[in-house]
Amino acid sequence: MDKIARIDMGAAGGPTVTVEEVGEYAGLGGRALTSIFIAKEVHPLAHPLGAENKLVFAPGMLSGTTGSMTGRLSVGCKSPLTGTIKESNAGGQAAQVLARIGYAAVILEGKPAGDDLYKIIINKDGIQVIVDNSLKLLDNYPLVEKLRGEYGDKVAYITIGTAGERKLLAASIACTDPELRPTRHCGRGGVGAVMGAKRVKAIILDDAGMKMRAPKDPDKYRDANRKFVEGLRKHPVTGEGLPAYGTNVLTNVLNEAGGYPTYNFKTGQFAGSANISGEAQAELEVKRGGTATHGCHRGCVIQCSGIYNDKDGHYLTKQPEYETVWSHGGHCGIDDLDTIARLDFMDDNIGVDTIEMGVTIGVAMDAGIIEFGDKAGAIRLMDEVGKGTPLGRVLGCGAAITGKVFAVERVPVVKDQALPAYDPRAVQGIGVTYATTTQGADHTAGYAIATNILKVGGDVDPLKTEGQIELSRNLQIATAAIDSTGMCLFIAFAIMDQPETFQALLDMLGSFYGIEMTGDDVVALGKKVLSAERDFNKRAGFTKEHDRLPRFFYNEPVAPHNQTFMMKDEELDEVFNW
Amino acid sequence: MDKIARIDMGAAGGPTVTVEEVGEYAGLGGRALTSIFIAKEVHPLAHPLGAENKLVFAPGMLSGTTGSMTGRLSVGCKSPLTGTIKESNAGGQAAQVLARIGYAAVILEGKPAGDDLYKIIINKDGIQVIVDNSLKLLDNYPLVEKLRGEYGDKVAYITIGTAGERKLLAASIACTDPELRPTRHCGRGGVGAVMGAKRVKAIILDDAGMKMRAPKDPDKYRDANRKFVEGLRKHPVTGEGLPAYGTNVLTNVLNEAGGYPTYNFKTGQFAGSANISGEAQAELEVKRGGTATHGCHRGCVIQCSGIYNDKDGHYLTKQPEYETVWSHGGHCGIDDLDTIARLDFMDDNIGVDTIEMGVTIGVAMDAGIIEFGDKAGAIRLMDEVGKGTPLGRVLGCGAAITGKVFAVERVPVVKDQALPAYDPRAVQGIGVTYATTTQGADHTAGYAIATNILKVGGDVDPLKTEGQIELSRNLQIATAAIDSTGMCLFIAFAIMDQPETFQALLDMLGSFYGIEMTGDDVVALGKKVLSAERDFNKRAGFTKEHDRLPRFFYNEPVAPHNQTFMMKDEELDEVFNW
Repeated sequence: MDKIARIDMGAAGGPTVTVEEVGEYAGLGGRALTSIFIAKEVHPLAHPLGAENKLVFAPGMLSGTTGSMTGRLSVGCKSPLTGTIKESNAGGQAAQVLARIGYAAVILEGKPAGDDLYKIIINKDGIQVIVDNSLKLLDNYPLVEKLRGEYGDKVAYITIGTAGERKLLAASIACTDPELRPTRHCGRGGVGAVMGAKRVKAIILDDAGMKMRAPKDPDKYRDANRKFVEGLRKHPVTGEGLPAYGTNVLTNVLNEAGGYPTYNFKTGQFAGSANISGEAQAELEVKRGGTATHGCHRGCVIQCSGIYNDKDGHYLTKQPEYETVWSHGGHCGIDDLDTIARLDFMDDNIGVDTIEMGVTIGVAMDAGIIEFGDKAGAIRLMDEVGKGTPLGRVLGCGAAITGKVFAVERVPVVKDQALPAYDPRAVQGIGVTYATTTQGADHTAGYAIATNILKVGGDVDPLKTEGQIELSRNLQIATAAIDSTGMCLFIAFAIMDQPETFQALLDMLGSFYGIEMTGDDVVALGKKVLSAERDFNKRAGFTKEHDRLPRFFYNEPVAPHNQTFMMKDEELDEVFNW
Repeated sequence: MDKIARIDMGAAGGPTVTVEEVGEYAGLGGRALTSIFIAKEVHPLAHPLGAENKLVFAPGMLSGTTGSMTGRLSVGCKSPLTGTIKESNAGGQAAQVLARIGYAAVILEGKPAGDDLYKIIINKDGIQVIVDNSLKLLDNYPLVEKLRGEYGDKVAYITIGTAGERKLLAASIACTDPELRPTRHCGRGGVGAVMGAKRVKAIILDDAGMKMRAPKDPDKYRDANRKFVEGLRKHPVTGEGLPAYGTNVLTNVLNEAGGYPTYNFKTGQFAGSANISGEAQAELEVKRGGTATHGCHRGCVIQCSGIYNDKDGHYLTKQPEYETVWSHGGHCGIDDLDTIARLDFMDDNIGVDTIEMGVTIGVAMDAGIIEFGDKAGAIRLMDEVGKGTPLGRVLGCGAAITGKVFAVERVPVVKDQALPAYDPRAVQGIGVTYATTTQGADHTAGYAIATNILKVGGDVDPLKTEGQIELSRNLQIATAAIDSTGMCLFIAFAIMDQPETFQALLDMLGSFYGIEMTGDDVVALGKKVLSAERDFNKRAGFTKEHDRLPRFFYNEPVAPHNQTFMMKDEELDEVFNW
């Protein structure tokens, strides 16, 4: 990981590849690299789909090593959905393979003039950019199937479906899992549309002939990794809840807490929640010959994913995540797992963010396009997205655009990105994160649910304002750092509760790079990343007035707690005042 | 004009009317009243289509008097198109009639819960708000026709078509002209969508039994008005060009200057311009038994409008304005007046801004939905807007939304409002206005074309940066003041060149209100209005980064001058530093 590849898709005679030393970005990875790079190199007022935007793929600092949980790939750009800086990361095999080939970052720049579609092959011999118009208008599953025919099963694929090719603002970038299914998505912020604007349909990563990245102190690294894995295995969330039920273990938890946004955020509990809970889902998956426990990349010890088969026992989709089950489920008044799984498959195949799409369909329901609870209608709307009809394009551009086009007043977005599966009126801490994160509404950016609801890392009452600012601030800083390591964010549950597991993480970083690594260094890294992102956003015209929730969260109390979002503007403005 | 009516459309038992003394808004009119009111009373982060927004109708300071040119009605709100404060004004009879009934402002507040549609009748006896669901989904022409059957021809009508009812973001508010045609529109910023959100389809203004508003010094007022009219009649623009050819006299002028944006701002001259010039238009109008000289309200001495008949001699539409001929014409590569007139009629009937719609169709052409120059295609797209199909809703939400949904990079908008008919690369001064006005791209906000191209009020080279900031600043200040008087902005040509005509305007204001009025007072009024607007926008999250043109104006030189927009960011930031 000592080099950076710049691929100029807009070069006059066709795409060119330049490989540079990693230079000033040395030692950075993941979100730290993408955000510091974008903040430095992209004009903050650039059109996100124009030649001035850049798309950066960066494995994490520990990706491509023998360390567990290090499979996250960060993708960075100016977001066409939010207009902010964007880092979106995914699991799957891509980060490990790209890191082992030796790239700290691969950067797509410029924009081709014509209509040709490209694929990029990256292996030990270098980088090839090849026109392949036979890939046009393929969705992710058939696209990967076609590429496997050519490049086989020992590589990792990064692809966009038709949504990305059409530059829809909710388009995602898919990474294949160990079984080469395009199920792990950089979902948020429309990064797939930027890849589509660069006219790159697929990146094929082949690490044949390359080795694991070597730590400076291999013994210490091995030892630290062992302790780290022990910590993950003994924590109730990462060692029990997530492996057994996946992220969807949260449906019952949030519904019970009255923070499960239902019917487009009209109430905080869903009568049909038991039908779509993680418990029900895991049982069904196992019964149908799938599995409720599966890792998205080799080296994962949490195994929060699964395989969801249809009623005939055929693979339908990967285990839908909690946020997907929510967005297509309770948010839309749908309590049928098969419908939700079908929509999850369509999202992955077309290549759109499951959160954005589900929220958008709920907004469309509020507009009266279909009724809440209309299962066939929801699938029909996703079909429109896949076909790229005018209605499909609107929906594929997300909740904010759909709300404008169909004149819906209650649109749950911050910075034009859809709110995820936790009502900020019932969980005030997550509202602070939604409002203030540099990314547009995003639960992962500072997952206050951990401490507000799951009581991990302490206990802050979700219904009160006290302590929420500090909680969100600390989580946002820690997350920015974790997103830079290549580590899956779910390690946070263990490191927040177990000092020895946090120390093991520090030791992994320290022994790999041959440096002393302390908790303060992690905090400093997180602050550095957030500062770069905030600086970009400021230059793009974002102010404290954008760090607010939509008005209806302040005006409409939500059952069962009958509370509004109570954080004061002046409190929100303190989040980054560290 | 000593009272203000507040109509609470959202009151629990149905709409309520409260009439107050004019109070703190005394002496204000038009834009001064609407903007100061909105800045004070509307939450800057309110949803524009929600109950928190307010819609203010305010005649100008001199409306309803015997003074010439005083027929402008200002409508103010938070704009659903731009998110900024918005003042949009129109001619027609409404301002005069409303002023004579005695209202300085009529304000629609709140939002009804149900689906009922309302009409409001305002006369000497008071204000009635009546449910009338028979008006549902009528467009402006049939709507006014229906209302005339009930309320006759001696009233003025303010209406919205289906676009406003559907809350499309480009929806306008129509005011009837002396012949009761709904041809004079508060076009910009989607004010019609706000009226639609209030569920008010029509306002019927009846001044029977009311008198002209009386000046404090009638003799001086009469004398000043006489001098004022003399000045207008002797100026070449207001006394010759506009009466003879209407605003479309500019087609040849701008094309010659290389500042006529063609094919969605790809070049600055249009081969077909002669076919759609004001000269060609006036000739055709007269030949077909229409007229090229017509006033939009009684008391107009410029008479810049006209009547455009179809080839069989039947009324088709009012004389399309220059900006309309451009947006539906050269911008879309269409050089056929009958097509443009048909589109103008459709805009007025459906109730959408002609500038926004034409620019949007050009953007749709750039997206490949139809070809540039496709006359039938353009009409077909407008049909979709009228029917409210998904595609029609997208288009009816304007150029920015259409650009996002169809992934067009070159979208000529500032603050999400479409640029009008003057290329800012060939006329740098108008670019300063587009970028910095509080209203989103708007030529009327500081019409630098006057001095850059027409050489009115001085001579500032349109191709150079020198003097443009001061020019735009002074024009924006003067315009904010004129928009408050009820005077048509076209008086500016005469008062900029003729000190005695400017003095006559000051004397009209002074003698009417019984005060001393100086040029400094006008400047102070303009600054006060702009300051209120800027303050609102700031609290709504707008920064200097929003006071910029889209990037392609900086990156793509335009023929024939092969220049980009050259004003520096730091220069733009000086516009309001007075």
